[in-house]
Amino acid sequence: MLETHTVKPVTIAIDAMSGDRGPAVTVSAAVQAVHENKALSIILVGIQSELEALLLKSAPQGHSRIRVEEAADVVRMNDRPSFALRHRRNSSMAVAVRLVAEGKAGGCVSAGNTGALMGFGRSIIGMYPGIERPAIAKLIPSLRGRCYVLDLGANVDASAENLYQHALMGSLLASAVAGKSEPRVALLNVGEEEIKGNEQVRLASHLLAQSDTINYIGYVEGSDLFRDVADVVVCDGFVGNIALKTGEGVAGLLIELLEQAFTRSLYGRFVGLLAKPLLRKLLRLIDPSRHNGASLLGLQGVVVKSHGNANERAVLAAVRLAVREVECEVPRRINERLDEILL
Amino acid sequence: MLETHTVKPVTIAIDAMSGDRGPAVTVSAAVQAVHENKALSIILVGIQSELEALLLKSAPQGHSRIRVEEAADVVRMNDRPSFALRHRRNSSMAVAVRLVAEGKAGGCVSAGNTGALMGFGRSIIGMYPGIERPAIAKLIPSLRGRCYVLDLGANVDASAENLYQHALMGSLLASAVAGKSEPRVALLNVGEEEIKGNEQVRLASHLLAQSDTINYIGYVEGSDLFRDVADVVVCDGFVGNIALKTGEGVAGLLIELLEQAFTRSLYGRFVGLLAKPLLRKLLRLIDPSRHNGASLLGLQGVVVKSHGNANERAVLAAVRLAVREVECEVPRRINERLDEILL
Repeated sequence: MLETHTVKPVTIAIDAMSGDRGPAVTVSAAVQAVHENKALSIILVGIQSELEALLLKSAPQGHSRIRVEEAADVVRMNDRPSFALRHRRNSSMAVAVRLVAEGKAGGCVSAGNTGALMGFGRSIIGMYPGIERPAIAKLIPSLRGRCYVLDLGANVDASAENLYQHALMGSLLASAVAGKSEPRVALLNVGEEEIKGNEQVRLASHLLAQSDTINYIGYVEGSDLFRDVADVVVCDGFVGNIALKTGEGVAGLLIELLEQAFTRSLYGRFVGLLAKPLLRKLLRLIDPSRHNGASLLGLQGVVVKSHGNANERAVLAAVRLAVREVECEVPRRINERLDEILL
Repeated sequence: MLETHTVKPVTIAIDAMSGDRGPAVTVSAAVQAVHENKALSIILVGIQSELEALLLKSAPQGHSRIRVEEAADVVRMNDRPSFALRHRRNSSMAVAVRLVAEGKAGGCVSAGNTGALMGFGRSIIGMYPGIERPAIAKLIPSLRGRCYVLDLGANVDASAENLYQHALMGSLLASAVAGKSEPRVALLNVGEEEIKGNEQVRLASHLLAQSDTINYIGYVEGSDLFRDVADVVVCDGFVGNIALKTGEGVAGLLIELLEQAFTRSLYGRFVGLLAKPLLRKLLRLIDPSRHNGASLLGLQGVVVKSHGNANERAVLAAVRLAVREVECEVPRRINERLDEILL
């Protein structure tokens, strides 16, 4: 829930057509988002007739802070990014990104093809000068504190210099959004002393240790992601993607086992009823829909990737993330700091 | 628990001095292991006086199937493997490995420094001819089925050829131990279509697809590790180590939250008492001590790495794993099959 002190108006463009569950989910999430945040306006991008019909269902009198922008085409999940960039310029995704580039929206949200979204972001909005590659960053929930992990799959490999730049952008993101003045930045590495990391990671560590602007704390392991050891954890996109999905897999497995335990018998259902209020915190923490939304970092604008399978609550979480980044003026702040550091 | 049809005598050497918790834990796990398995003999390797004193405490009348082998030195956790190989030849770890090489033990278990253990294994026992690099393999528990994941950190990078060989060894291990005739073998990869894997993974996939001997099913993602999609999942040691530890981190976090929920209030403790029998399956599945033990694959002998922080139950699990691999004659079977395939 957004705090009531939010007064600066914010506009978010939503690629309403992408995502496995179709526009019905996006439209009702948009209605809910403007309902909970009086400073928020939303532009739903997609097939106008379809979106207006859905909007009429969700908000029969229409809504003054939601408008529809026509986009006849849709990027498919199996489109190659290069194909989408050439042939889907009138897609809901491309139009939503363009609204950000043109300043008509502060940020955008899409549940479509990640590679295409990154591609449109790079070509339409552009990247920070001096940054070689973008990264996908996500705030990982845990018991104490939360930490940004990046890259989660924008690139399948990374040079030491790429890792260094991702550490820098992650640090600036954490400063801008979480308000931490000196976020603790770490590199993800393996545990065994004798095989401490591959060459790129060791070299990146060397670069980071010499930096005046980054509060580099050294290596952390996979299990440290949930222990409030660092505010920003950097790895290449291959490792990050697999670590994230493995963690989600374990969480999913445990949710399934909990559900089994509390539904399979009458006794289980009874105890489950008693346990429900006790397990609220745990279930909130591992409910993926509450943590939906990853930041496409490196672009000169706020672009949030929502999960392809996002439900209404999950889309809402992604919209909130975009709003927060717009309110915190993440691109402007990162740009200014990069100007100071990289020049 | 071992089945009662076990009749072939098996001897396991235990590096009794390594591990964070000291020899008391190893000795009492050894006593329990011979107690539950009448065909098992154990050689405890370490400082004789210390081990015999501990043994006397655990089994006052001594035990006919446990004997102590003197080793004056111990490999330290922060010893570099190269240092250990040169200067710790009389360590409990080296002696335990030597007992396997000399045929005095069918297999050995150590909770010491992984790099040193692998080094002693390679130099004292030797590797399969034709296999370039060893791998660390572990059976990952899940709701349905279980799968071997390798490499978990023997190497921090891997060529396509290394990945192919790890897939081959993993497949032979699963055949030998789990008795599957055509284990499903997969490569761990990232989810997004457009960035399907780095170069080594794509090349390894190509090699595996052409193999007659491996039942290669393609790519799987991190979340698939727990979905009985494959019997063997192959990745490089950097990725595997981080994925495993991230998964363990999530499980640890959830256990902590469950404990909080069921201990923080009188009501919580009451409901926890009622829920305990229902949660037994879940707690068994995520209890790391029940799944302790990783196989050092590629060596011509059974060498099991136990977790440095293993408690008594965990050491027992590692010993059972070694016993199972000896009973299944894993090294002989892999050797024979490799002879057929690689020659």
